[in-house]
Amino acid sequence: MRIAFIGLGNMGAPMARNLIKAGHQLNLFDLNKAVLAELAELGGQISTSPKEAAAASELVITMLPAAAHVRGVYLGEDGVLAGVKAGTPVVDCSTIDPQTAREVSAAAAKQGVDMGDAPVSGGTGGAAAGTLTFMVGASEKLFASLQPVLAQMGRNIVHCGEVGTGQIAKICNNLLLGISMIGVSEAMALGNALGIDTKVLAGIINSSTGRCWSSDTYNPWPGIIETAPASRGYTGGFGADLMLKDLGLATEAAKQAHQPVILGAVAQQLYQAMSLRGDGGKDFSAVVEGYRKPE
Amino acid sequence: MRIAFIGLGNMGAPMARNLIKAGHQLNLFDLNKAVLAELAELGGQISTSPKEAAAASELVITMLPAAAHVRGVYLGEDGVLAGVKAGTPVVDCSTIDPQTAREVSAAAAKQGVDMGDAPVSGGTGGAAAGTLTFMVGASEKLFASLQPVLAQMGRNIVHCGEVGTGQIAKICNNLLLGISMIGVSEAMALGNALGIDTKVLAGIINSSTGRCWSSDTYNPWPGIIETAPASRGYTGGFGADLMLKDLGLATEAAKQAHQPVILGAVAQQLYQAMSLRGDGGKDFSAVVEGYRKPE
Amino acid sequence: MRIAFIGLGNMGAPMARNLIKAGHQLNLFDLNKAVLAELAELGGQISTSPKEAAAASELVITMLPAAAHVRGVYLGEDGVLAGVKAGTPVVDCSTIDPQTAREVSAAAAKQGVDMGDAPVSGGTGGAAAGTLTFMVGASEKLFASLQPVLAQMGRNIVHCGEVGTGQIAKICNNLLLGISMIGVSEAMALGNALGIDTKVLAGIINSSTGRCWSSDTYNPWPGIIETAPASRGYTGGFGADLMLKDLGLATEAAKQAHQPVILGAVAQQLYQAMSLRGDGGKDFSAVVEGYRKPE
Amino acid sequence: MRIAFIGLGNMGAPMARNLIKAGHQLNLFDLNKAVLAELAELGGQISTSPKEAAAASELVITMLPAAAHVRGVYLGEDGVLAGVKAGTPVVDCSTIDPQTAREVSAAAAKQGVDMGDAPVSGGTGGAAAGTLTFMVGASEKLFASLQPVLAQMGRNIVHCGEVGTGQIAKICNNLLLGISMIGVSEAMALGNALGIDTKVLAGIINSSTGRCWSSDTYNPWPGIIETAPASRGYTGGFGADLMLKDLGLATEAAKQAHQPVILGAVAQQLYQAMSLRGDGGKDFSAVVEGYRKPE
Repeated sequence: MRIAFIGLGNMGAPMARNLIKAGHQLNLFDLNKAVLAELAELGGQISTSPKEAAAASELVITMLPAAAHVRGVYLGEDGVLAGVKAGTPVVDCSTIDPQTAREVSAAAAKQGVDMGDAPVSGGTGGAAAGTLTFMVGASEKLFASLQPVLAQMGRNIVHCGEVGTGQIAKICNNLLLGISMIGVSEAMALGNALGIDTKVLAGIINSSTGRCWSSDTYNPWPGIIETAPASRGYTGGFGADLMLKDLGLATEAAKQAHQPVILGAVAQQLYQAMSLRGDGGKDFSAVVEGYRKPE
Repeated sequence: MRIAFIGLGNMGAPMARNLIKAGHQLNLFDLNKAVLAELAELGGQISTSPKEAAAASELVITMLPAAAHVRGVYLGEDGVLAGVKAGTPVVDCSTIDPQTAREVSAAAAKQGVDMGDAPVSGGTGGAAAGTLTFMVGASEKLFASLQPVLAQMGRNIVHCGEVGTGQIAKICNNLLLGISMIGVSEAMALGNALGIDTKVLAGIINSSTGRCWSSDTYNPWPGIIETAPASRGYTGGFGADLMLKDLGLATEAAKQAHQPVILGAVAQQLYQAMSLRGDGGKDFSAVVEGYRKPE
Repeated sequence: MRIAFIGLGNMGAPMARNLIKAGHQLNLFDLNKAVLAELAELGGQISTSPKEAAAASELVITMLPAAAHVRGVYLGEDGVLAGVKAGTPVVDCSTIDPQTAREVSAAAAKQGVDMGDAPVSGGTGGAAAGTLTFMVGASEKLFASLQPVLAQMGRNIVHCGEVGTGQIAKICNNLLLGISMIGVSEAMALGNALGIDTKVLAGIINSSTGRCWSSDTYNPWPGIIETAPASRGYTGGFGADLMLKDLGLATEAAKQAHQPVILGAVAQQLYQAMSLRGDGGKDFSAVVEGYRKPE
Repeated sequence: MRIAFIGLGNMGAPMARNLIKAGHQLNLFDLNKAVLAELAELGGQISTSPKEAAAASELVITMLPAAAHVRGVYLGEDGVLAGVKAGTPVVDCSTIDPQTAREVSAAAAKQGVDMGDAPVSGGTGGAAAGTLTFMVGASEKLFASLQPVLAQMGRNIVHCGEVGTGQIAKICNNLLLGISMIGVSEAMALGNALGIDTKVLAGIINSSTGRCWSSDTYNPWPGIIETAPASRGYTGGFGADLMLKDLGLATEAAKQAHQPVILGAVAQQLYQAMSLRGDGGKDFSAVVEGYRKPE
């Protein structure tokens, strides 16, 4: 299949690699010449613009840092919509606000192009290993055509509803995740201060009503879960600044929807304070450090 | 076995009933004559004071509303410690602050009495069915002697460490639970406001990093989990005022330990605001109603 | 003086009226024909576009609802910058984010136009009475040329620094105001619940370290300050939805600046919850109602 | 006048000194022998117990660290109520919860003793200079008899209502103060991050609706107010741990009264986090440091 892949950063590049490996012919675009050259060696074709890449392809995939880039890449003079043929399936894998996802998709629809959103979870590790989760907002028909290709880059391909619902699912999940991680941090640090063994406490929580992914799989207290970032100095996980971005999208979407998110807003500010202290590059579970005496 | 059982309220009475059924001889005390009469019909003996009940027993169990009652029942003139024989195992199943649990236990130790704490979870339903979870703070030896009897009232008997750790485990777990429930409420209400199907959203959360008991077992959004209070008008679960009591214990213990609990403190206030609105008797998951337009 | 006045809503219309009264020749633009007709009767000239209004004037003033309108009115095809002559002083009185204020001003500067920002406080009452406060971000020279005209619409004309600082001053002040009002609400409601006379409490606060405008001038408790909205059913003041807009600008600007605002974020959510309950149209001091038992 | 003065710590000792200077005969009690010896040199009489001091006096004043000490000093075997003669006016100047103030006063009333509460503000500086503010909860008659003596230790003697209202006034004011200080910190730090001159910003706030004592008299930003602790390294003011104590009293009283205090609870936790970082001994306005990049 001839696929346009636009946006070859930390996530996009390994995703594109998996598609090349799967035998597809990729038309690539990015501002970074080095990564283009690298992927060209693996067999990809370099395009000079999103427009050119899209024009030459049967499917368009984009993976960009933020909403402004998505608008630029799709709606710009040399953008995807200037080149893509009517009927071509299009999917944006960026994590952005649902409103922009819907607006760009509506612009595509005017040209007879069915465009969905499919933000991912799983990080750069999942992108390399091809084990990402895709949360897909798309019509039934578009989902059916995207599913086989997305499955070559990920393990769980979840249909969330119409366009925009992929973004909604992701920001709602991450809103809860950002809160839960702080909740676990407070519970573990309090238990520790009061004198219970933290492994025993985690064991009780994990078999009780406090049970959650942030405790049983990714516990922020060092030494509880061997494979969690907390047990390797809060490196190599999901950075606090990325969590901050997602909480920013969640509270902004809540504002647009006139919907309060009280704990979510506090959580956002606590990650922001962590970032201000210089710890935005650490795994987000290092938020627990704000609850421990500095050494 | 001759067992003193003091405190026969909504939790204590069904627990005592299960011990009578299991063949023990109970020496009962409560200020409520009606419940004493009822249990006497099942074969229990009525005592005139905690002291008398304790003096005639091989094991003492108490189940009281709050720390002040525990102090009174143990340390008062006609209290347990005035009557209990040295060497008798003693356990308090009340949910109180860890500090009081340790102090009363220390007073007992001065008389050669080994006293532990074993707060429960599982509610009045679990008390009646004999399926409670006991979180036990006790020496190894005391735990060994308590375990078989607790097992006649509950399903999970967890040893948390020395005296006081039962209370610590319970308040840390419930601190996290109180936070998680609000986190799920915000995520579900936001998703609903943004236009995703709430069942789909819950499904995605439950198989992703937002996964938690408050979402997959006790989801606050009506119609998601058939057996959850949300699907029957927020009745018959764990009342918001009980959650409020536990969060009060958690934040008070945190204050004593000079430990911050930021989201926990906000959560406490949100349940307090719910209680002020007149909804303290509803299941605590009704906190989600503060995030929905009133009808 | 020939002045372009663009944006004739609840604030802009009475401001324009004061300039007409002061003897200026106004070139007016708004999408609302009715208000244009009304002001034309007073002697204003109706323009067909911002461009036309600006082209015919020695000074340009705009007063618009939000950043998107400011971008449209200035940068659009028929916008102010398409018509304004180099050297004409320009000032935007809208309350928007500082970033947009700076960007639009930079676009103006490229055409040799010096554009400042001058958001106001004082409400529709102050606009009608000509007693507004203007917080002005502008070069020294621009401020000198704006000052006499702004003084015909307001009483305090404060120079805050370079362009953008007017917006910054306003959102920082209102961030604090939004927090203080909730702080006073909590203090008054707590005192009332604990049994002190609320007038006595307010008196003590107002002569002590809790002293603030939200207590001594605009106290949210009914009957404390006769002239405050609390004493007339929370009508006729600064609506909660307007406070919500300003807190939204503040937290968004904080996000852009990577700066935490913890109480500010909680305050925003509490006004949002108030708005969700249907009270967004009440004066913002009605936030105290969330701290009182419903009647 | 013969006055019993019990509790001669950092506040009590200078207060007692002012009464000796004013010509009263003081009967002193404290556990600290050194301070007793020092005050005896100035002419005070040393008592061996609160009971003895009270028995020999026409007026009893106490100044103690916390509620437990108040209970002990009044209700203990050798306590004030064991010695005081019926009809003697009694006043406790400690800062404690209103509930304890009312309970101890009720115990005194049973013996025909009229006891009031009169917590102070003004710190050790005000105690030495005799410029304290006393917030007095007492009957009209008791207030009339206390007023002249309190006026020898302070400048403002405010009658707040019946017994307990002195404490209520103090904790409500300090609840608001604790919130306002964080509000000012967030506004100043945000303004600074966005690029406005902080002196200009403070000037605008101080003449606008954000105006408050925490900004115009005690601004937390260094260099704004010369006499504020912020301008001398956050030393010599009102310590964060003292603010933490008062917020603890406020949130505890709110819990007892089933009254939510949302921003107050967050504020308490933020000072707690500051204390955990090792900054509990700094002036409470140093809470602003959590909003600035560490150097």
